Amino acid sequence: MPRYKITIEYDGTPFAGWQIQANGPSIQGELACAIEALSGARIVPRGAGRTDAGVHARGQVAHFDLDRDFPPETVRDALNFHLRPAPIAVLACEIVDGAFDARFSAKARHYLYRIVNRRARLALDRDRAWQVPVPLDAAAMQKAARYLIGRHDFTTFRSSQCQGKSPLRTLDRLDLTRDGEDIFVITSARSFLHHQVRSVVGSLKLVGESKWRPEDLRRALDARDRTACGPVAPACGLYFMKVDY
Amino acid sequence: MPRYKITIEYDGTPFAGWQIQANGPSIQGELACAIEALSGARIVPRGAGRTDAGVHARGQVAHFDLDRDFPPETVRDALNFHLRPAPIAVLACEIVDGAFDARFSAKARHYLYRIVNRRARLALDRDRAWQVPVPLDAAAMQKAARYLIGRHDFTTFRSSQCQGKSPLRTLDRLDLTRDGEDIFVITSARSFLHHQVRSVVGSLKLVGESKWRPEDLRRALDARDRTACGPVAPACGLYFMKVDY
Repeated sequence: MPRYKITIEYDGTPFAGWQIQANGPSIQGELACAIEALSGARIVPRGAGRTDAGVHARGQVAHFDLDRDFPPETVRDALNFHLRPAPIAVLACEIVDGAFDARFSAKARHYLYRIVNRRARLALDRDRAWQVPVPLDAAAMQKAARYLIGRHDFTTFRSSQCQGKSPLRTLDRLDLTRDGEDIFVITSARSFLHHQVRSVVGSLKLVGESKWRPEDLRRALDARDRTACGPVAPACGLYFMKVDY
Repeated sequence: MPRYKITIEYDGTPFAGWQIQANGPSIQGELACAIEALSGARIVPRGAGRTDAGVHARGQVAHFDLDRDFPPETVRDALNFHLRPAPIAVLACEIVDGAFDARFSAKARHYLYRIVNRRARLALDRDRAWQVPVPLDAAAMQKAARYLIGRHDFTTFRSSQCQGKSPLRTLDRLDLTRDGEDIFVITSARSFLHHQVRSVVGSLKLVGESKWRPEDLRRALDARDRTACGPVAPACGLYFMKVDY
């Protein structure tokens, strides 16, 4: 009963999120259907992270067990065949040890948030970035970001629906880079709280438009109060990039 | 009667091409409708280049005259408002001299062609790049590309439908860069023949998969024969990036 690890890219736009749910199509559900078409059995893959509706992935990871010993290339190609026309692609597949768990074996998760800072709406990158028309001061945003690095109580920056047992998380990286009208927020942690990245980016945007000073981000963190958070940034700018094991 | 120059981004996927035509929606036609909604008059903008169906633009340029003296910011914002929900965005607008012509005043045109060289089909970049599953040798492609730099008879690399009076063109730049699975072909010239970039990229791909040696590209050029060209690369990988005046 081999265990397979798959690395997945998807366009989150048409999905209600990673997780199988009643209110719409999910990436996990589409994958389960493709696995069933290959194996004949109903097997639900387990993902490294439950991305929300509209959130994209370039490197989500999932695992599942099959009864038969298919070569990993066969599994990859068969899943890609059966996934059509859903915008989900299996980039890589390998057989892993039975102790491997896509969620619990993860040592680090990497996310990218993309802002396009311009007045005109997005034609080519619609649903692929957050268009912010007000000029943003990326240097101020980078300065503010430093207050969040390290181990903190992130109550301010997590959804009220968050099921995490503790609001404590260790942010290993939170970097901003600007390239013309593009602003990229790159962040890494062992794990994130629900809506953490989008809550942080939404608050950084207030700093970028000078509604908050950089120190106000620290104050919001210290408040440990969800109401101290800025408006949550939209899902379409967020990309789940990579998982380290 | 001021003349306006606009810089335009668009997703070419849903359009029959730049030019107004009977068989489907066009970028030029959508712009004409938006200009009419603003000005009340039927005015057709003139573009720097007639992109084909499915070809994208990050910096197409067009011009048109209005009876009334609107501030350029008003024109930009009004066109963007009336263009909704078409995936066309006016990035910039300025008033220019009456002698300016988007097509004939152009000193250089810049195109980008994006190949994604991987086995899995594209989920996030569907209709935004050419997915080539066979591993490509970018160094061999770059070597071959050098044969096309300069002034040549590009009969081999132009569509049989091309209306250009002469097949002679001067290619100022044809560079390949690889970044992981992405291969970018960047090319510049004062003007291009119909299907020239896609014909060149389609032939370079044959070099990349070792079906042609780099010298075979030179041989194809020297043949001055359309049948010596490789299969034309698909439209979805091509971006009209910039026009210099």
